[in-house]
Amino acid sequence: MATIRLLDDNELDDRARAVFDDIRKTRGTDFINNFWRALAHDSALLERTWQTIKQVMAPGALDPLTKEMVYIAVSATNGCDYCIHSHTASARAKGMSDAMLMELLAVVGMANETNRLANGLSVPVDDVFKVDAD
Amino acid sequence: MATIRLLDDNELDDRARAVFDDIRKTRGTDFINNFWRALAHDSALLERTWQTIKQVMAPGALDPLTKEMVYIAVSATNGCDYCIHSHTASARAKGMSDAMLMELLAVVGMANETNRLANGLSVPVDDVFKVDAD
Amino acid sequence: MATIRLLDDNELDDRARAVFDDIRKTRGTDFINNFWRALAHDSALLERTWQTIKQVMAPGALDPLTKEMVYIAVSATNGCDYCIHSHTASARAKGMSDAMLMELLAVVGMANETNRLANGLSVPVDDVFKVDAD
Amino acid sequence: MATIRLLDDNELDDRARAVFDDIRKTRGTDFINNFWRALAHDSALLERTWQTIKQVMAPGALDPLTKEMVYIAVSATNGCDYCIHSHTASARAKGMSDAMLMELLAVVGMANETNRLANGLSVPVDDVFKVDAD
Amino acid sequence: MATIRLLDDNELDDRARAVFDDIRKTRGTDFINNFWRALAHDSALLERTWQTIKQVMAPGALDPLTKEMVYIAVSATNGCDYCIHSHTASARAKGMSDAMLMELLAVVGMANETNRLANGLSVPVDDVFKVDAD
Amino acid sequence: MATIRLLDDNELDDRARAVFDDIRKTRGTDFINNFWRALAHDSALLERTWQTIKQVMAPGALDPLTKEMVYIAVSATNGCDYCIHSHTASARAKGMSDAMLMELLAVVGMANETNRLANGLSVPVDDVFKVDAD
Repeated sequence: MATIRLLDDNELDDRARAVFDDIRKTRGTDFINNFWRALAHDSALLERTWQTIKQVMAPGALDPLTKEMVYIAVSATNGCDYCIHSHTASARAKGMSDAMLMELLAVVGMANETNRLANGLSVPVDDVFKVDAD
Repeated sequence: MATIRLLDDNELDDRARAVFDDIRKTRGTDFINNFWRALAHDSALLERTWQTIKQVMAPGALDPLTKEMVYIAVSATNGCDYCIHSHTASARAKGMSDAMLMELLAVVGMANETNRLANGLSVPVDDVFKVDAD
Repeated sequence: MATIRLLDDNELDDRARAVFDDIRKTRGTDFINNFWRALAHDSALLERTWQTIKQVMAPGALDPLTKEMVYIAVSATNGCDYCIHSHTASARAKGMSDAMLMELLAVVGMANETNRLANGLSVPVDDVFKVDAD
Repeated sequence: MATIRLLDDNELDDRARAVFDDIRKTRGTDFINNFWRALAHDSALLERTWQTIKQVMAPGALDPLTKEMVYIAVSATNGCDYCIHSHTASARAKGMSDAMLMELLAVVGMANETNRLANGLSVPVDDVFKVDAD
Repeated sequence: MATIRLLDDNELDDRARAVFDDIRKTRGTDFINNFWRALAHDSALLERTWQTIKQVMAPGALDPLTKEMVYIAVSATNGCDYCIHSHTASARAKGMSDAMLMELLAVVGMANETNRLANGLSVPVDDVFKVDAD
Repeated sequence: MATIRLLDDNELDDRARAVFDDIRKTRGTDFINNFWRALAHDSALLERTWQTIKQVMAPGALDPLTKEMVYIAVSATNGCDYCIHSHTASARAKGMSDAMLMELLAVVGMANETNRLANGLSVPVDDVFKVDAD
C-alpha cells in the first residue's frame, strides 16, 4: 500500500507525460511500473530520476548487466523489497541466470558479514591500502 | 585504534598459523593485512572466514573482478572504511580502472537514492516482477 | 503479523492503562495505534517511549511539522514500513502536502546517494568544516 | 585518506572545469570542497550531482534550511562522517543554532529507536494509516 | 513472494539433499523452513551457510539463547522481516520469555538512538576507551 | 572532531550539572566521557538519555553484560565507532573476555550475512514462525 496514490496516464502533467513517453519508447513496451507512477507526483523528480537512470545504467566502463547486479547488491543490503524485485527482473532480462544470482548474493552476504567484523573490531586500515598517499 | 590487539605471527595458535600460511601461499606474498591479525584471536572464526572468502571470491558464474566491485558496493553502502580500502585495492590489482570505480559508485549512489524513494513511498511491487509466481 | 500479540484494552496493567489514557487525552481520540498495543507488554518501555515522544516532538527550536518530516526521512532511510506509514499520516495531519512529501523524499534520496559517494571514495573532511576546532 | 586522488584545478577536463566555475559562482567563493575534487574524476557524475543538488536544495515547497537539516538526519542515520560535517556547516551558515541541531538530533535518535521497536516486533500497519486505499 | 522458486525435496542435487538430511537430523524434525529451500539453488552456498550456522550458534563462550537474542538484535536493526520472525521463534524455543524479548528490544532501540547521537555529533573516542593502545 | 564543542564542567546549566553529578555518583568515578559532554548542550536531551540508559541497562529479565553485548552488536551493525569503543570497554569491565567478544562478533557477522540472503531472495516468512496468529 503506497503512501501516495499511483497516478494513471490521464492524471499526468505535460512534463511527466513526456517522461512516460520516453520510458515507453526506450524500453519498447507500453508498460510503466509503479515506481514511476508514484514519482509522477513531482515531475521534476520524475524527469531527473529517469534521466539519471538512463545515463548511469548505460554501457560505459561497466556493462549493463554488471550494473544491474550491483543494483541488486545495494538493494539487498538496504532491504528495499521493491528494488530487489524490479532489478532482479531487469538483470534476468539482461541474461542473469539463477547461478549468477546465487553467487552474487553469496558475495553480498559475505561482504555484509566482514563489514561488521572489521567495524566491530575497529581494524585500522593498513598503510598499503592507502594507495593515494603519494 | 582496534578494540582488540592485532596479533603478531609469534602469538598464533596452530590453527591460526596454518591459515596465515595458506593466505601467504595463496596470495604469493608474505604480507598479512590487519583484518586477519584481528580475527586471529578466534582461530575457528579466522579459518571459516578465510575458507569462505576463498570459495566465494573464486571465479564461477561471476568473474573475480565483478565480485570485488560488488564487495565495494556493499561496503560503501554500509560505510565500512576498512573494507572500502582493502577491496578497492584488491579490485585495482585485478584491473579496475579509475573510470570503472567512478561508474561503479555512480550506480551505488543511484541505487541508494532510489531505494529510499521506493521505500519512502511504499511503492507496491508490480505483479510482473513476481516472476516466481507460478 | 507481529512477533508478539497486540494487547486489548482489558489486558493492560495499571501503568500501561495510564499511558493509554494519556495518549487518548493528548490526541483527542479513542483510537490507539498498533505500535502502542505491542509496546504495552512492557509498561516501563511503553511509558518511557510515550513520554519521550511527547517531549521530542513538541514545538521547541523546531516546529512539529519539521520534526515529523525528519521522522519520515529517517524511517525511509532505515526502511521501517510501519514508521513511514504512521509518520506520513501524522505529517499530513499537520499540513504536509503531496508536493512537500515529494520534495522531502527528493532530499532524502539525494542524501542517501551522496552519502555513498563520499563514503565510497573515503573523501577526507575539509578543515573548514571542522568548525569546532577552536 | 581518499581511495582516489583529489584533483587540483589544473587537472580538470573542460566539463569538470565548467562545473567548478559554476560552484564558485553560485556560492560566491573560490573554495571547492574535497567532495567535488574526488567526483571530478568522472565529469558526467560531477555535473549530474551538482545540477541535482542545486535543484533539490533550492527553495520550493520546503525551505533550504529545512532541507539541510533533513540532509543531516539522513547522514547521521547512515554514519557518513563527511556529509555530517559538510551539511552541519551548511545548515549553520543558513541559520541553524546549536539548540536547533540538538533538537534535530533528538528526533533523529528517537526515530532510529522506534524504527527498531516497530521492525523488531513486526507491528502491522494500522488500516487508518493506509490513506491511499481509496 | 521470493525472487527465486523455493525448491521441493525432489528437486535437490546430492549435496543439497545431504544438507537437508543433516538439518532434519540436527533439529529432530522433518520441517525445512523456506530460507533453506531458497538457498538450495546453490548447494555450495547452502552447505557453507548451514555448517557456519551450526558452528556459530553452538554453545561456547556464549550460550545459544544469548546468541539467538544477538541475532534478533541485528535483524531488527537491519529490518530483515524473515530473520526477525525465524530467530524470535528460535529464541522462544530456547526459553526467551515475552519480558526478555521486550527488554532486548529496549536495548536495541536505545543503542540505535545513541548510535545516531554519537555519529551526528561526531563525538571523538575518549582515550580511556582505546584499551588496546599499549 | 565533533560538530559541536564538548562542554567543560564550568559551562553546564543546573539541569546538566545535576546529570553529571548523578553519572559520577552512579559510576563511582569523576570521569565523564565525551558523549555526555556533547549532549550537555541540550540538558533535556542529556537528562532523558541518561535516565533511559540507567533504566534500560539495569538488571532485569536480562543481565547487564548481555545487554552490553547486544549494544555492541547493534553498534557494529550500524558502524558507530564511538559506541563500539565505549560499549566494548563497558562490556569488558563487566567481565567480557576476548573469546566472548570474538564469538559475539561471529554471530553479528553471520546475522548480517543471512539478513541479506533472506532479503535478497525475498524469502516468504513460514507460517510456523507466525506464532501470534492465534
